[in-house]
Amino acid sequence: MAMSGELTIDLGALVRNYKMLDGLSTPECETACVVKADAYGLSVGKCAPVLYEVGARTFFVATTGEGISLRSVLPDDATIYILGGLSTGDGQLELDKSHDIVPVLNSLAEIKLASMNADNFPVALHFDTGMNRLGLGEDEAQVLFQDPSILEGLNVRLVISHFASSEDADNPDNHAQLTKFNEVKRRIMPLCPNASFSLANSGGSFLGDDYHFDLTRAGVALYGAHPTSSLEDNPMEPVISLSVPVLQVRTAQKGEGAGYNSTYRFDENADLAIVSIGYADGLPRSLSNEGVFYWQGHALPIRGRVSMDSVICDLINVPGNEYPALGSMVEVIGPNQSLDALASSASTISYEILTSLGGRYKRVYT
Amino acid sequence: MAMSGELTIDLGALVRNYKMLDGLSTPECETACVVKADAYGLSVGKCAPVLYEVGARTFFVATTGEGISLRSVLPDDATIYILGGLSTGDGQLELDKSHDIVPVLNSLAEIKLASMNADNFPVALHFDTGMNRLGLGEDEAQVLFQDPSILEGLNVRLVISHFASSEDADNPDNHAQLTKFNEVKRRIMPLCPNASFSLANSGGSFLGDDYHFDLTRAGVALYGAHPTSSLEDNPMEPVISLSVPVLQVRTAQKGEGAGYNSTYRFDENADLAIVSIGYADGLPRSLSNEGVFYWQGHALPIRGRVSMDSVICDLINVPGNEYPALGSMVEVIGPNQSLDALASSASTISYEILTSLGGRYKRVYT
Repeated sequence: MAMSGELTIDLGALVRNYKMLDGLSTPECETACVVKADAYGLSVGKCAPVLYEVGARTFFVATTGEGISLRSVLPDDATIYILGGLSTGDGQLELDKSHDIVPVLNSLAEIKLASMNADNFPVALHFDTGMNRLGLGEDEAQVLFQDPSILEGLNVRLVISHFASSEDADNPDNHAQLTKFNEVKRRIMPLCPNASFSLANSGGSFLGDDYHFDLTRAGVALYGAHPTSSLEDNPMEPVISLSVPVLQVRTAQKGEGAGYNSTYRFDENADLAIVSIGYADGLPRSLSNEGVFYWQGHALPIRGRVSMDSVICDLINVPGNEYPALGSMVEVIGPNQSLDALASSASTISYEILTSLGGRYKRVYT
Repeated sequence: MAMSGELTIDLGALVRNYKMLDGLSTPECETACVVKADAYGLSVGKCAPVLYEVGARTFFVATTGEGISLRSVLPDDATIYILGGLSTGDGQLELDKSHDIVPVLNSLAEIKLASMNADNFPVALHFDTGMNRLGLGEDEAQVLFQDPSILEGLNVRLVISHFASSEDADNPDNHAQLTKFNEVKRRIMPLCPNASFSLANSGGSFLGDDYHFDLTRAGVALYGAHPTSSLEDNPMEPVISLSVPVLQVRTAQKGEGAGYNSTYRFDENADLAIVSIGYADGLPRSLSNEGVFYWQGHALPIRGRVSMDSVICDLINVPGNEYPALGSMVEVIGPNQSLDALASSASTISYEILTSLGGRYKRVYT
């Protein structure tokens, strides 16, 4: 019987997803890997080296701390960008230098900070083209275009922007962002002769050559999530599967409640399996009374609230009372329920499921 | 400037909360500590030893893995119970024995498994009195009462049940569960002469002496959450505070969108702070367009979707354009926003916020 939930991570599928995404653009266009948040929860130490092995040479993380961890598992010729920029100031600049990691500068304030303290320091520049999140806005971009001396001391290797809705292939905002990014490119190229350009994330890779520039940035699609509305079926291979043991099989009487605050009432007697997973394992509490798990292909609806360490499942769809035993494994993510389907039941996206995967599972890398 | 978000954990407040909860019951009633899920996300290695130091001798965790970790940081005279029972079968029984941890048996199947393999093996029994989650139901309890030989080989040290709604002090289900547990006690006492009895969790500790029995189990209240509707103001001291650095200050134009899929539109020009926290840090994505953070006491409403690593905040309430700088720290949980208030904005409970606290924060224990 299993010690705990078992999370299987298929590194072969990860690699095949990388190759598939890389194949969407021309050979001249590089495909980088976004491995922030510990490779979307799947372990950067396991994922980044296998991606390097099949040819990935450029990686993106969110913070300097993540960059330092990543550097320790990658060969020297890998380039590491920090999307979170320079919020930590001069101290971070020195850290970035000593670990050979490259900050993505998101504002004039960051550019000035880097420029003041740098001599041919490699950086990326991020221009916002429609999210109002990170990156120079149009106001700051104009200041920069008109005073290129602001970039003194910096070796701009990459210029990026980020899509707000690229998974929604028909959204006109994608083309509007493309137009803005082409204008940024036209203005900044003379100032940064060494720079490459990058706009597309996972969804953007499916929007066609115009959107690819020199470098695409593969993120959630690497890990198996459906990246684009342009294809009905998910073109990516699933990377993770998750199953959890049954702690108890029991019967509830008609009229009784299930779980905290009895948010579900049984209108008939019901046979139940209590399984060993809860929100402390990253299973969203929003699955309370919403989601299903699977046992031998039969859907087990969740009854009542998701608890910290356990979930109450109804065996109503299991024929002939041939129930799971103590320790039988129930599927949370697998052949019957995709990562995206679980996320949808929880009213969220696969990204949040991935980055919340808990520390109590036994992790098996295949 | 800060390297990342900073999570401060006040071990002094944790200890004072323990003493306060312990003071609710008579000196004869012991107060145990529930430290499952890595002490509700706050580190069992830090929390359990200080609770032991002020007198706690009984601890509850969810899984055998957690029990083994806990044993390594506690002296030998501490008792450790595993709420998740014996799902791992014989192998777990041997692990439990060798690490001196005591399984809580939740079903006849578990009792039989333990009994078959044990000789005076210490266990706890869990009777369900109204959740239909873990514990012997009435049907299984009757079988046990009528055939005490089922308990052969077991040394029952503790008999427990668990409240479904104890934070809701006026809920009649609490008294109904109490009545059922008293009946369990009457029936099982002759069979288990060494057993202590325990019903109350954090909320139950506030329901009065009748609910306390021999042992109360302090959980979420230890960590600062409001445990009872019987008191308007939270009687517990806050244990955690969380602040995160500003990555960028920017301006959005009237009519533009914020974040992924532009789920928020600015109806006036707006000044924004982008801060370094996202759902990969355990900040629920359900705070999208819902929550607020604070800077110097001013509420900063969240605009658009919470991203994986960042959040867009509106500086609309900051007077005189005296804005935070790059690296300024913004309050997520602290004097202006309690743990419970943040959870409420995210349509969840403090427990889920605590157990989701991410690994990228700098953690400071005071």
